[in-house]
Amino acid sequence: MENYLEQAILLAQMVNGQTGTNPPVGAVVVKHGRIIGLGAHLRKGDKHAEIQAIDMAGEANVKDASIYVSLEPCSHYGSTPPCAKRIIDTGIKKVVYAAKDITLDTAGHQMMVEAGIDVEYRPMKQALDLYADFFKSKSDGRPIVTVKVSASLDGKQATDLEESQWITSKAVKQDVFNLRHNHDAIITGNGTLRKDNPSLTTRIEDGHHPAKVILSRSGDVNWNAQLFKDETTPIYIYTENHSLTSTEDHIHIIKANQLNIDFILKDLFQKGFGRILVEAGPNVTSQFLASLDVTNFILYLAPKIIGGQGKYQFYQTNDVMPLDQLPQFEIVHSEIIDTDMKLRMKRK
Amino acid sequence: MENYLEQAILLAQMVNGQTGTNPPVGAVVVKHGRIIGLGAHLRKGDKHAEIQAIDMAGEANVKDASIYVSLEPCSHYGSTPPCAKRIIDTGIKKVVYAAKDITLDTAGHQMMVEAGIDVEYRPMKQALDLYADFFKSKSDGRPIVTVKVSASLDGKQATDLEESQWITSKAVKQDVFNLRHNHDAIITGNGTLRKDNPSLTTRIEDGHHPAKVILSRSGDVNWNAQLFKDETTPIYIYTENHSLTSTEDHIHIIKANQLNIDFILKDLFQKGFGRILVEAGPNVTSQFLASLDVTNFILYLAPKIIGGQGKYQFYQTNDVMPLDQLPQFEIVHSEIIDTDMKLRMKRK
Repeated sequence: MENYLEQAILLAQMVNGQTGTNPPVGAVVVKHGRIIGLGAHLRKGDKHAEIQAIDMAGEANVKDASIYVSLEPCSHYGSTPPCAKRIIDTGIKKVVYAAKDITLDTAGHQMMVEAGIDVEYRPMKQALDLYADFFKSKSDGRPIVTVKVSASLDGKQATDLEESQWITSKAVKQDVFNLRHNHDAIITGNGTLRKDNPSLTTRIEDGHHPAKVILSRSGDVNWNAQLFKDETTPIYIYTENHSLTSTEDHIHIIKANQLNIDFILKDLFQKGFGRILVEAGPNVTSQFLASLDVTNFILYLAPKIIGGQGKYQFYQTNDVMPLDQLPQFEIVHSEIIDTDMKLRMKRK
Repeated sequence: MENYLEQAILLAQMVNGQTGTNPPVGAVVVKHGRIIGLGAHLRKGDKHAEIQAIDMAGEANVKDASIYVSLEPCSHYGSTPPCAKRIIDTGIKKVVYAAKDITLDTAGHQMMVEAGIDVEYRPMKQALDLYADFFKSKSDGRPIVTVKVSASLDGKQATDLEESQWITSKAVKQDVFNLRHNHDAIITGNGTLRKDNPSLTTRIEDGHHPAKVILSRSGDVNWNAQLFKDETTPIYIYTENHSLTSTEDHIHIIKANQLNIDFILKDLFQKGFGRILVEAGPNVTSQFLASLDVTNFILYLAPKIIGGQGKYQFYQTNDVMPLDQLPQFEIVHSEIIDTDMKLRMKRK
């Protein structure tokens, strides 16, 4: 069995992807050697993990208890009162947390120490990994961006004749559903709507459908595309076409004189989208991969070679970059999924 | 500690790559609970592993001993007398082996059983894996062919401006030296001589330099290329140019009216080359990858994306193949080498 701090981190990992621009946090309240309350921050605007856990234990029972939290308890009045204050008020005597919240001005740690609580910062790799992207995103004012590509070993998303369905296996498709489930929104290009016509849904039990974001400079949107059939999930269309409109409530049109990644990402972050998945064709994919705003790059490689002249190479640029100035990534995880390879990478 | 049969397989693995068209075999002779002889087949034409082990033990000491062998002892008179007969003659009372030699007509197993020896076939995955390629190669009359490619994530061996040095890390280079060391010959194209000018050597301590095979239809060979500087390693040039000659003893020119992979591989096998490594540019690489004669495909992926228009995609074909008819591979092993990914695949 994991220890209590690891359990708090596990709880945080369970809600990772459903807290928007807020961090996923888990908390465990322990007294007399057993867990008396569990909590997690379930969504932005909702109770913080510490409060959930204290509430589950019952305020009256928490006196002299210990609380284990994945992230340092907050000390500021945001949409909820500070957790540090609530911990002090309930008479908890010991706090252990696994990562510091570097985006906050006042430390919850100090506030609780001054109230006489035994506070320990016990850094844990799983927690630091969990929050690194979140802290960067918060200070940049841009979402965590993951680019997902399924390609052949020779770097192609489709044959020269546009054949692309099932390059990777069905097991990868299921993994992509999980990936979608863990993001707030999916960005795709208008070209993908025309060619692949994906529904971009999450076919997992009780899964979450991320919002859909369509990039279309021209605004020449194919309204018959599959993804417009789902009217319960919001759709955002970014366009340079100032005459584009929609009468549908769930369709939002954002116009700009010149669309660029920076504008789109900042706007999405302000709308509360903390984690964005890019699932698009070579054009949009290449622009994101060339950008420094990409946090994660997930590449599914099918062990086949497509050849041809390579019209649908997933990464193509107009300019030739010198080898020492190319976008570089660090491979942080690799696994074989059925017959295919999954690489998870970070932009270096 | 491994058991004796596993030790015999380890010995075989140690000599894998240095036995030409013969299988790598290891043997351990055991008596009174301890190893009294170790052996391995060191090179084609040399003593078989069982004989090496018996000789190390001393013929007089082998009576009533057990012998563990990675492969079924042979029963035929080839360049050496049959091992099964020698085992019978020495009075060994027990034989355990880990893989059957399916390319032989008469079974050594049966021959030894009839002589009253306790013979056990104990199949071991490591041994079956070790010999699968060898058996196929022997029955096809073609070498084991490994294609090695170093590429960016988007499947390119070089930028559009031909810049290709150090796409992958120095640690990969070292791995490639080991790969070369384990092969009898390296095939490359004339284009690679012109562009990369590699020496194709094995810079490892006491390493083996494989023979070099250059494919050049035109015979327009750049005799100043780096690899001609090493006069101790044989070079084979396959060409359609019937007037091509060389006065150097170590350079062999093989002429054909029409060069094709089948002809080249059969000819190399007849010359005694059991394991061939293909290290070439997109042209030669693509031809081999498209061929069913490829046994192994080793792909080193550097986590960078080259982009451009993709003039040096490692796999390119004139025709567009439908997705369900593409060359497919099975990923049998993957590992991260320093910053890069290594995938070892088998043709499916």
